[in-house]
Amino acid sequence: MVLTLALDAMGGDAGPEMVVKGADLALRQAKGLFLRYLFFGHESSIEMELKKYPSLQKISSIVHSETIITNQTKPAIALRSGRKSNMGMAIDAVAKGQANAVVSAGNTGAYMALSKILLKTIGGIDRPAIPAILPTIKGKTVVLDLGANIDCTPENLVQFALMGEAFARQLLDIERPSVGLLNVGSEELKGNATVQSAAQLLRNFPDLNFKGFVEGDDITSGKTDVVVTDGFSGNIALKSIEGAARLIRHFLKGSLSGSLRGKLGYIIAKPAFDLVQTKSDPRMYNGAVFLGLRGIAVKSHGGTDFIGFANAIGVAISMIQHNFIKDIEERLSMLTSKEENLRAITPTMEA
Amino acid sequence: MVLTLALDAMGGDAGPEMVVKGADLALRQAKGLFLRYLFFGHESSIEMELKKYPSLQKISSIVHSETIITNQTKPAIALRSGRKSNMGMAIDAVAKGQANAVVSAGNTGAYMALSKILLKTIGGIDRPAIPAILPTIKGKTVVLDLGANIDCTPENLVQFALMGEAFARQLLDIERPSVGLLNVGSEELKGNATVQSAAQLLRNFPDLNFKGFVEGDDITSGKTDVVVTDGFSGNIALKSIEGAARLIRHFLKGSLSGSLRGKLGYIIAKPAFDLVQTKSDPRMYNGAVFLGLRGIAVKSHGGTDFIGFANAIGVAISMIQHNFIKDIEERLSMLTSKEENLRAITPTMEA
Repeated sequence: MVLTLALDAMGGDAGPEMVVKGADLALRQAKGLFLRYLFFGHESSIEMELKKYPSLQKISSIVHSETIITNQTKPAIALRSGRKSNMGMAIDAVAKGQANAVVSAGNTGAYMALSKILLKTIGGIDRPAIPAILPTIKGKTVVLDLGANIDCTPENLVQFALMGEAFARQLLDIERPSVGLLNVGSEELKGNATVQSAAQLLRNFPDLNFKGFVEGDDITSGKTDVVVTDGFSGNIALKSIEGAARLIRHFLKGSLSGSLRGKLGYIIAKPAFDLVQTKSDPRMYNGAVFLGLRGIAVKSHGGTDFIGFANAIGVAISMIQHNFIKDIEERLSMLTSKEENLRAITPTMEA
Repeated sequence: MVLTLALDAMGGDAGPEMVVKGADLALRQAKGLFLRYLFFGHESSIEMELKKYPSLQKISSIVHSETIITNQTKPAIALRSGRKSNMGMAIDAVAKGQANAVVSAGNTGAYMALSKILLKTIGGIDRPAIPAILPTIKGKTVVLDLGANIDCTPENLVQFALMGEAFARQLLDIERPSVGLLNVGSEELKGNATVQSAAQLLRNFPDLNFKGFVEGDDITSGKTDVVVTDGFSGNIALKSIEGAARLIRHFLKGSLSGSLRGKLGYIIAKPAFDLVQTKSDPRMYNGAVFLGLRGIAVKSHGGTDFIGFANAIGVAISMIQHNFIKDIEERLSMLTSKEENLRAITPTMEA
């Protein structure tokens, strides 16, 4: 099977140079797979970069676009350009079945808005959510939403839980993922009205491995396989974790280079440090999926380098390989079709 | 000057043994100061512990109480016991001027509720807030609120900003602390309605060094001296940072003990590691103040050990030494008394 990836060549702070270099790295990492790339953007600047990687060039096509959406383009303007822009054309390639997934490091708001319109949401999902896979003491945890939805209803959070569960089942290969709802305490009475109602709905949801409330430090302790939260708290939690990692790296560097003894220890233990660096490197976890769409759209961090972008492509490939949109659809059909389940949920929804 | 501290001897998971040992450590750390301790709780169990530390015993008195508030006591029940409980008596000692500050590792909800009733809030402050002092790449940052107030109005956030500013000026010794408002992006249009309105009010506040929105990773980067947020996001951010620190320590241990080379490097660099450990040790930042009260009440983490409790006592001592309640009162009088300032704020409050 050939996997075709639509890449927004103009997205990200570093543009075509970074995107093409990342695509080349992803190609070399995807051994045994047959990849094809479609690059969308300014033909000449993409071609210039592609020339540097002959084996990449062989499997790539360029689709030229005059209208370019940059990181400064407002979502409203981006929406108006629709299918005509580099980003819109890349997304549309997935909608039309010409590509299996789209990857962009461009403007998040524009990308989300265009994806929602061109790819549409899965039945039962009101709004797409952005999950992240984070390293934990036990392994990995899926956290969502990470910033796509600032204000959420309890029903939105329930939908996030179901999407996160399907995501964890497929990508982390866990049969029955446990789900926690992010709150300020694990006691049942803690938190605001929204998390209280969402917890009620989730407790009554049929066949869901719901573990109740979890706290900020449970994200990295790996208490549950999925952590559900609104985009406001989720974004703050994720960025706080990234910031803490940077702070500790800063402390380590400072204290280890402070004395000759520390320097020597650092030199001897360097390979071990590199391992930690890799494990806690945000680039290795780059590649946010817009969950809940009828097509696969992966968002790379705008400020990433080629290693991060290659990882985002890797996420897109995993998503294609796991038949994961179908899994979410089946899970959601439980919400909308099974009379008895509906009856089980309805009383608490009214409460 | 003699500083008298009222200590809740029964609070915290480890009870009198931990509290008394922590008080002894704090006494030895507070060189040059004249301390006096009042221990509130079961007389016999406190006395048994005090005997272990002769020089501590000399400066300590025990106030016996039959009614004990434990970590399991509900705030409503605790409120009913009022001044009669160990915790209520300790707080009341400050209200009556018998002690300069109270420190407890007990039940947060009960402690907050009793403190609010017995000590009262400063004029202009609707609700007390809990700040934390966190280590950053640049130094230290004050973050508030950390969980006392789950749902906040824009006006609450403005009050937190003023309290945080006074706190940073006094405890971090910064003349004109910069203030940031926690959000999901630093652009002006990001976030929910509450942070948008709060930012409007803060931008127009006279003589405030307001820097606009900051993000989760700006907490540890030290972008501003004060980070203001509601108790829901603040609690999640703080616990996420603590969790990330534990995760990285876990990675480091694992990778450094994975090979002989790593082990050797660790042994050589151990003093440097210890320094990092100390710098990122949450116990060193233990001691949350209930800001906005007319007396000094410090909350130690319930699960802390004696080192953390000693640090909480240290925070209480700093609070007494800096005349910081007066500073907040002066800052707030700007809100309530100066006509021209009120006029400057009013239009945006109505917007």
